[in-house]
Amino acid sequence: MKAESECYLCLLGQVLRTAGVLGLEEAETRALAREACAFLARADFDRTPPEISEDLYYFLAGLTGHPDPYRILKKEHIERALKLYPELKKLAATSPDPLRTALEISLAGNVIDFGANSEDDWLKDGRFLSPGPFGIDDYQQFKEDLQRADRIVFLGDNAGETVFDRLFIEISGRRPVYAVRQAPIINDATLEEALESGLAAVAELVVSGCRAPGTVYERCSPEFKNILDQADLVISKGQGNFECLEQVRGPFYFLLKAKCRVVSRYLGVPQGSLIIMRSRNYNSRLLA
Amino acid sequence: MKAESECYLCLLGQVLRTAGVLGLEEAETRALAREACAFLARADFDRTPPEISEDLYYFLAGLTGHPDPYRILKKEHIERALKLYPELKKLAATSPDPLRTALEISLAGNVIDFGANSEDDWLKDGRFLSPGPFGIDDYQQFKEDLQRADRIVFLGDNAGETVFDRLFIEISGRRPVYAVRQAPIINDATLEEALESGLAAVAELVVSGCRAPGTVYERCSPEFKNILDQADLVISKGQGNFECLEQVRGPFYFLLKAKCRVVSRYLGVPQGSLIIMRSRNYNSRLLA
Repeated sequence: MKAESECYLCLLGQVLRTAGVLGLEEAETRALAREACAFLARADFDRTPPEISEDLYYFLAGLTGHPDPYRILKKEHIERALKLYPELKKLAATSPDPLRTALEISLAGNVIDFGANSEDDWLKDGRFLSPGPFGIDDYQQFKEDLQRADRIVFLGDNAGETVFDRLFIEISGRRPVYAVRQAPIINDATLEEALESGLAAVAELVVSGCRAPGTVYERCSPEFKNILDQADLVISKGQGNFECLEQVRGPFYFLLKAKCRVVSRYLGVPQGSLIIMRSRNYNSRLLA
Repeated sequence: MKAESECYLCLLGQVLRTAGVLGLEEAETRALAREACAFLARADFDRTPPEISEDLYYFLAGLTGHPDPYRILKKEHIERALKLYPELKKLAATSPDPLRTALEISLAGNVIDFGANSEDDWLKDGRFLSPGPFGIDDYQQFKEDLQRADRIVFLGDNAGETVFDRLFIEISGRRPVYAVRQAPIINDATLEEALESGLAAVAELVVSGCRAPGTVYERCSPEFKNILDQADLVISKGQGNFECLEQVRGPFYFLLKAKCRVVSRYLGVPQGSLIIMRSRNYNSRLLA
């Protein structure tokens, strides 16, 4: 999915949010915003949003000297998620359809994001457990494909959400490959955060080789491309992975909250909808 | 009041909104957003937001060939306001304090704006008549200063709002000079819209000589500067005029809705507050 005009605004908004997270002074923030505008003016928008975002974040990291501005917040989110974990696991395990409930919890975890339209208050007022209406719900088909699949790959998204992915994986009784970003980008999970989330106990942890906030197939490591090529089922979490992979033919299921107008419009769902979607370019084996 | 880092985001948002109003295709909108980023990257932000906005809009007008993108909307807003006019006038005239009620109606009219945080639905659900809480309310002092003033200048803001300004002027029983922008800028009223609003019947209409979405004293015509210099009271409507004039020593009262975070923070009020404020740099005569 290619970036659209509204992505200019969202990316610039992320720059200001990052400046806030870094606690920059107004003069520094203003300088950063100006540099970001210059960057966006020359950026190639004939790409997916995560590809542009990657370049922007590394540009900002160079300017600010902070390669991982969200590290403290990522850690905090994981800690908060781990506190909820026992209760949520009991909830899933005792529900009439544990897999479905665990999937909904994992999906609700996708609200944890400092990229597109972040929501700080993801655990307030019980909202975490009422993540909103579904726009697309291919759960039955997903359940069947999951049962049939031998080699499963799970593409992680944000730190914190990772804890709820772990819950889903435990409930599913399967042991997938769980892939995270190669290097810090926004609040996406890296190996460090995957380990902190306890994912090593339930999955084979790998890094994708890609450092964009989404899995760009061409920029994954040869090792991870090989893993993807052999997968029977790829569970792709979040907008970023969706934006990068929805055109790729392969055994993809996209699990996300459609946070922004661009993605919602693209999917034809109201903004904020939850999505469990068998890829429109589904194929039993990845064809890159 | 100088622009802040968040103004980058707001100005870029206005560009996208203007592209929407013009009904541009996605490819054209994208090109416009890119050009706007390049513009913002080189813009001098050591100025007030209306000064930057003026340059940006004239830059866009040159690119799109549309000098007045909001003309149809301005006309529509005036027509909608004129329909409400008789009822609102009766409401003010029969209230215990007609001047106060008319002032509140004029203030509520300030929600009509396509610049900062526009709200299309200004007449829906009776919201127009419940414009929100006051952050600063110097009404009593204003009333006294108004009674004492001989030469009154009213600085208009948006088209549509103009109709409610007319209502206030009628109820006040005074005949001020009513000043509008020299040329079209966003949805601000020009002479054309002032005439459509029926202001010629209640005020002496003048153009300020300034084409920014705010009254920049230095860029007003010699004639209008002279009018301002001799005023006993200047009623300044809207954020734009406030941003340009709050540092100028003179007999200013600022009437506005604090629409954006930058202005709200500057005033120390919650975002969305209504303001009737005697200038912090009040002086019985303008000292430029």
